[in-house]
Amino acid sequence: MSEFITDNFLLRSDEAVTLYHEYAKSCPIIDYHCHLPSSEVASDRQFQNLTQIWLAGDHYKWRAMRACGIDEKFITGDGSDWEKFQRWAEVTPHTLRNPLYHWTHLELKRPFGISDRLLSPETASSIWEAANAKLQTPEFSARGIMRQMNVELVCTTDDPIDSLEFHESIASDESFDIKVLPTFRPDKAIQFSSPIPLGGVIDELSVKNYNAYLDRLGVISGVAIHTLDDLFEALKLRHDFFHERGCRLSDHGFELFNYCNYESDVGLDSRFRKLRNGKLIDEADALHLQSAALHHIAVLDNDKGWTMQLHIGAIRNNNTRMFNRIGVDAGFDSIVDGNFAKPLSRFFDQLDRGNNLPKTIVYNLNPSSNEMLVSMLGNFQGGGLSGKMQFGSGWWFLDQKDGMETQLNVLSNLGLLSKFVGMLTDSRSFLSYTRHEYFRRILCNLLGKDMKQGLIPKDYNLVGKMVENICYNNAKNYFGFL
Amino acid sequence: MSEFITDNFLLRSDEAVTLYHEYAKSCPIIDYHCHLPSSEVASDRQFQNLTQIWLAGDHYKWRAMRACGIDEKFITGDGSDWEKFQRWAEVTPHTLRNPLYHWTHLELKRPFGISDRLLSPETASSIWEAANAKLQTPEFSARGIMRQMNVELVCTTDDPIDSLEFHESIASDESFDIKVLPTFRPDKAIQFSSPIPLGGVIDELSVKNYNAYLDRLGVISGVAIHTLDDLFEALKLRHDFFHERGCRLSDHGFELFNYCNYESDVGLDSRFRKLRNGKLIDEADALHLQSAALHHIAVLDNDKGWTMQLHIGAIRNNNTRMFNRIGVDAGFDSIVDGNFAKPLSRFFDQLDRGNNLPKTIVYNLNPSSNEMLVSMLGNFQGGGLSGKMQFGSGWWFLDQKDGMETQLNVLSNLGLLSKFVGMLTDSRSFLSYTRHEYFRRILCNLLGKDMKQGLIPKDYNLVGKMVENICYNNAKNYFGFL
Amino acid sequence: MSEFITDNFLLRSDEAVTLYHEYAKSCPIIDYHCHLPSSEVASDRQFQNLTQIWLAGDHYKWRAMRACGIDEKFITGDGSDWEKFQRWAEVTPHTLRNPLYHWTHLELKRPFGISDRLLSPETASSIWEAANAKLQTPEFSARGIMRQMNVELVCTTDDPIDSLEFHESIASDESFDIKVLPTFRPDKAIQFSSPIPLGGVIDELSVKNYNAYLDRLGVISGVAIHTLDDLFEALKLRHDFFHERGCRLSDHGFELFNYCNYESDVGLDSRFRKLRNGKLIDEADALHLQSAALHHIAVLDNDKGWTMQLHIGAIRNNNTRMFNRIGVDAGFDSIVDGNFAKPLSRFFDQLDRGNNLPKTIVYNLNPSSNEMLVSMLGNFQGGGLSGKMQFGSGWWFLDQKDGMETQLNVLSNLGLLSKFVGMLTDSRSFLSYTRHEYFRRILCNLLGKDMKQGLIPKDYNLVGKMVENICYNNAKNYFGFL
Repeated sequence: MSEFITDNFLLRSDEAVTLYHEYAKSCPIIDYHCHLPSSEVASDRQFQNLTQIWLAGDHYKWRAMRACGIDEKFITGDGSDWEKFQRWAEVTPHTLRNPLYHWTHLELKRPFGISDRLLSPETASSIWEAANAKLQTPEFSARGIMRQMNVELVCTTDDPIDSLEFHESIASDESFDIKVLPTFRPDKAIQFSSPIPLGGVIDELSVKNYNAYLDRLGVISGVAIHTLDDLFEALKLRHDFFHERGCRLSDHGFELFNYCNYESDVGLDSRFRKLRNGKLIDEADALHLQSAALHHIAVLDNDKGWTMQLHIGAIRNNNTRMFNRIGVDAGFDSIVDGNFAKPLSRFFDQLDRGNNLPKTIVYNLNPSSNEMLVSMLGNFQGGGLSGKMQFGSGWWFLDQKDGMETQLNVLSNLGLLSKFVGMLTDSRSFLSYTRHEYFRRILCNLLGKDMKQGLIPKDYNLVGKMVENICYNNAKNYFGFL
Repeated sequence: MSEFITDNFLLRSDEAVTLYHEYAKSCPIIDYHCHLPSSEVASDRQFQNLTQIWLAGDHYKWRAMRACGIDEKFITGDGSDWEKFQRWAEVTPHTLRNPLYHWTHLELKRPFGISDRLLSPETASSIWEAANAKLQTPEFSARGIMRQMNVELVCTTDDPIDSLEFHESIASDESFDIKVLPTFRPDKAIQFSSPIPLGGVIDELSVKNYNAYLDRLGVISGVAIHTLDDLFEALKLRHDFFHERGCRLSDHGFELFNYCNYESDVGLDSRFRKLRNGKLIDEADALHLQSAALHHIAVLDNDKGWTMQLHIGAIRNNNTRMFNRIGVDAGFDSIVDGNFAKPLSRFFDQLDRGNNLPKTIVYNLNPSSNEMLVSMLGNFQGGGLSGKMQFGSGWWFLDQKDGMETQLNVLSNLGLLSKFVGMLTDSRSFLSYTRHEYFRRILCNLLGKDMKQGLIPKDYNLVGKMVENICYNNAKNYFGFL
Repeated sequence: MSEFITDNFLLRSDEAVTLYHEYAKSCPIIDYHCHLPSSEVASDRQFQNLTQIWLAGDHYKWRAMRACGIDEKFITGDGSDWEKFQRWAEVTPHTLRNPLYHWTHLELKRPFGISDRLLSPETASSIWEAANAKLQTPEFSARGIMRQMNVELVCTTDDPIDSLEFHESIASDESFDIKVLPTFRPDKAIQFSSPIPLGGVIDELSVKNYNAYLDRLGVISGVAIHTLDDLFEALKLRHDFFHERGCRLSDHGFELFNYCNYESDVGLDSRFRKLRNGKLIDEADALHLQSAALHHIAVLDNDKGWTMQLHIGAIRNNNTRMFNRIGVDAGFDSIVDGNFAKPLSRFFDQLDRGNNLPKTIVYNLNPSSNEMLVSMLGNFQGGGLSGKMQFGSGWWFLDQKDGMETQLNVLSNLGLLSKFVGMLTDSRSFLSYTRHEYFRRILCNLLGKDMKQGLIPKDYNLVGKMVENICYNNAKNYFGFL
C-alpha cells in the first residue's frame, strides 16, 4: 500500500504545503508544558522496548484498549511487554478516526522511520523488532530522541517540594544543551480536598494528607508551618528556589474553576490553623483559603515575570473500582461541565486591580466554554504586553485535529491568533514530539485554505511570518526563559 | 428538473460512493429503538392516505407548519386529510435546509418511488393521488413497508404494565419473519413527578397519578404494592416477563439527569410508604427513591445481559395552552440546558463498584454536552466487553446531517467510532426507515472524505468492514437478540 | 498585490456568485437594530477624519489594540487622532482571521473605494489622507453614507425617557427619506441592580441610581411614580409616545436571562414602595418585580404589534480598573455561561397563556446555548404568524463568519431558515453597513454550496426568492413599520 503519513499529510492545498515546509517544519520545539520525568533525562534512560517507551503510562491507549474489551492484564497488569504490544497492535485498526491512529503512525515514522506499514496484528511482530532494535542505539536514548526531534527547551511539571536535583544535574551537564526547566505546580499546597478539585470534598483523609504534605513542605523550605503566613512564606521560598533554577511558569489544575471574592487575609488564619490542627473546615472556608493562596501565588508569578497556567475542566478518578486497583492518571478522568465565567472574572479582576495580574494561559477541557473563555481573556489584555492573556492549545481530550482547529478558530474569531504561543505536548512520553508536527500541519492547513479561498491575503511574508511566530517566536519572546 | 434524491445523494467523493453502494446499502435494518405501535404491526394496518401515515402523529412536521403560520385546524384539528396534506405541501418548500426537506423527499422516493417531483402546492395533488394509490396495495401495509425496507428487527418502547399481547401475536405469526421486540421503559414506575423529569415537580396530581399507576402495576404483576420491596419485586416480575418475550433493552427518559449518591435502601421504605399513602414527599426524598429504583433496574438489566438506554435533555410540554388542547408529544418539547457529569459519574460508578453496570447507551439532546458525555463513557469501558458504553446516535432535534456528523465526529475523537452500534429511527412512523439510509450516506460520506484526504488509509477492507459493522454487525453482536 | 475584497469575496461556487449578485446585492438595507446616535443623523454630522468615524467608540478595535500591547493613550487616551490611526494600522495585520480584518477592508472598499491596499504601517499615511479627503465631501456625511449604502430604514436604541427630539427632527425633514425609528429599551426602568444584569447585585448605589431614574421618568411621562402601578402607567405612556413616533420594537439586555413564575402583581407593590423609598430589597423580591415589569412591557408590545427583542448572555464591565478609568462600553464585556431554558420557557408560556406573547427575537451570546434556544422558540411558534419567534443573527462576539454560519445552520436544522428576518448591524458607527454585505455573502455562499452539493434543489426561483426574503422581504413584512 502507499504511505499513510506522507510529506504532505494534512496539507490540503499548495498554500498549506508551502507554509508548512518553508516556514513551520524547521522551527525548533519549545515544549513549555509537559510531564516528562526529569530523572529519565538526567539518567539518559535507554528503553528496552516499544511497550516501555510507548504503552507504559499512556492512558490514552489504555482507554482505547479497554473500549475494545482487552483484559486489564494486558493493559496495566502483569502481561509481558510483548503481549501488551500485541494487544495494542490488535486495537490500533479499531482506532480509525481517533487521534491515536494518527499519533501512532506519526510516532512510528518519526523517530523510528517506519512508514511503510500500518500497525496491525499482521505487522506487530516486524514493527516490534524494528523499533526495539533502534531503541538499543544511542540515538534513541531519552536525550537522543529529544535531539533528533529538534527540541530546544522543555518545561516539566513539578511539586514545590521537589528538590529539582535532576534539573540541576541536567543543567550542569555541558554535553547536553537542551534546556529542561521546572514548572511550579502547587496544587497539593493550596487545595485541601481530595483528590484535586478546588472546592471538592474535604474529609479526614484529605486533611490528614494535606497536613502531611505541609510537614514535608516545612522541612524542605526550612519554615515550620503553623500559620497561613508561614505557608505563604514557605511557598515564596520555594518559588524563589524554582526561579533560580530557571522556572518561569506556574501551573494549577482545577475540576471547575471556583473563586470567592478574595479581598484580604483578615480572618483566614484561624481557619487555616484549624485545618493545620487536623480539624475539618467547611467548603466556604476552604474556598476562601484556596482563593487567598491562589491569589498570593499569582502575585509571586507576576513579581517575577512568570506565566500562570490554569488547567480547567477535568473530573478525575471517576471509576472507584479501578482507582483502588491502579490509582491516579490511569485513564479514568474525563471532561466536567459547569460555569466559571464569573469566578474567573473576579479572580483576574482582583489581581488586575492591584497591578498583580501575571501573564496567563488558560487551558479549557470542555469546548462548550471556549467562546466564553476567549472573550473573558480579552477583558484583561493590555498593560503594554503583547498577547498577555493566552487561550491554551487544545488540551487532553481536545488535543486532536477537530479540537485544535476549534481552538484555533475560536481564538481567531474572538481574539488574536497572531499572538498565540502555540503548541505543547502535555506528555509523559519521549515519543510525543510529533504532536508539534501535527499541530503545525493543522495550523498551516487552516491558513493555507484561508489563503486559497481569499479569506486572508495570499501574502507569504505576512502569513508565513505568522506561522513562524506561532510555532516558535511567540513562545520564545513570551516566556522570557534565560 | 433533474432528480433531487439521486443515487449518490450526500456522497461527495468516489470513495464515499464505493463505501455506500458496496458496503452500507444492502445491510438489513436493526431498528433497536423506535416507537412503532405494535398493534399496527399485529393488525398489519393498511393506511388510507398519506396524511394518516405521514402527518398524523409527526410533531416534527407540525412544528414547521406552526412556524409557517398554518392554522392548528389543519395541523392537529378537524381539517380534512386532504386539507392537511395540502397545507403540508405548502409548507414543504419553506423547510429548505431543515431535515424535513430531506426526509420528505427520501420517503417519497422510498418506498413510494416518487422522485421526479418536489413536494409543493403545484405537485400536491399528483403526489397525493400517486401515493394513496400505492397505500391501497399489500406492499404498503405496515408489514409490507417493513419488508420493502429490508427491516430485520425492531424494538418498540413499552410500559412495564403493557400486556405485550401484540408482540406475542406477531411472534406467533409464522407468515411474518421480522422480529418485533418490546423495550422495558419504566419511567412511570420510578419517576414521581409530573410529567417526566426526574427531580421535577411533585404535586398532588402527580402523586395521585403515580399511585394509580402502581395499582395497575400491582394487578398485572400479581404483587400488591405496599412497600418499596413490593415495587421492586413487581418490576422484577415484569422485567422477567419482558425478557421471556425477547426484550433485551430498557429505556429511561430524563429532563436533566440527576442522581444522588445511592448506597442502600435503608430508610427509603418509609418515604415510599408515605408516597404510596398519597402524601407529598420533598424533592430530596424523591431523588433518593428514584435513584434507588434506577439502580435496581440497572442491576436487573445487567443480570440479564440487557442494554440500558438513557435519554437525557428533553424539556417537555413547554406550552401550557397547547398542552391543555392537544396533550403530550405534540411538538412543544425542546432541548434543556444544564450539567450532569457528576450525577452520571456517580450513577455509573455505584453500579460498577458492585459489578452491576450493564451495557449502556446514552442519548444526549444538547450537543454542548457531547464531549463531556463521550469522555465520561470512556471511564466505564471495559469488563471484557467491546464497546460496552455507547454514545447514542443524533437524537430528536439532532437527528439531522449536522447533528449526526457531530455525533460521529465527537465519538471518533473521544471514543471509538468502530465500535458504534449505529442508527435507530426513534420513530412512530412506518415511513421513517430511510433515516437509516440517510445515516449510512452521511457515515460513508465522512469516511470517504477522510480516505480521499488521506486522514485514514485508502483501504476498503479496513474501512468498508467498519462501515458494515456500524450499519449492522455491531448492533447484531451487541444486543444479543435471540 | 491583487485585490483582497474582490467582487466574489466569500463566494466559493458559481451558484453562490449567482445568488449574491442577482438576488442579494441590490436589496435595500433594513437595519432594524443599531446604536447609531440619532443626533448625528439629525445634524448630518461631517466627520473630520478616519479616527473620529472609525476608531472613536469602536471597542472591537480597542480590544485588538490592547491585545497587541498598545498603550491606552493611543486607544482611548489623549493621543492625537493621527497617532491613534497609526497604531490601528500597526495592529491591523495582526488581526488576520479575526473579523476585524475583514470588516476593516470591507469598509475601506465601501464607501471609501480603497481596495488596492491593505491597511498596515506602510499604507497608513496614504489611506489616512485618501479617506479623510472623502470625509470632507457631502457624500460622506452621516446621511450621505447612509444613502450610499442603500439604507432604507434604521432603528436606533433608546431609553424610555429619551425625548426622541432628533427622531422627530429627522422625520420632519423632507429632504431625507431614510427612516430613523426609535426602539424602546427600558433596562434602566425595570432592572434594579448595577449595572445591567437581571438578578445582579442590588446595593445602595444601584437603588439610588434607580430612584433617580424613576424621578426623571416621572417628569417626562407626567406620572409621579409612587406605586408599581404608577411605574407601569408611566411606561405605558412612554410606550404610546414611542409608538406614535414609529417605534415598533422593544429591547432588553440580560446577563443571564432569569424569570420567576410571575402570575400576578399581588403583593408586589409593597416591595416596590420599599425600593422607591430607598431601601434595599433582596434578590428574590427584585426578581419578582423585574419579572412582573418584563411581563407587563411584553403585553404592551403585543397589544401594539411590536416585536420584543431579548439580548442574552453578556457579562459586562469585568475590568474594574478600566471601568473606573473609561466607563461602560469600553471593551471589557464578554460572554457569560449559564442555563436559561427553564426561565425562558416560563416567561414565554406565561405570556402565551394569556394570548399576550408578542413577536420575539432572541439574540444569544453564548453559542453553546444555540440549539437549546432555537428548539425552545419552536414551542411558541404559531398563532397564525409566520416566523413569529426569531433566533437573532450572530450577535457581538459571534458577528463573524463562523458565528453567522453557525447561527444560520442551527436555525436551519432546528427551525426554518426561510422565515428569518436577517441581519442587523447592532453598531454605533455609520461605517458598519458592509456587515449586511458580509452577511449576504455568507448566506449566499452557504446556499450556493448546498445547491452545488445537491443538498437543496438547484432551483434559483426557489433559493433566490429565499435569499431575497432573508435579506429584505421578511424584515419588511415582519416588523410592520409604517
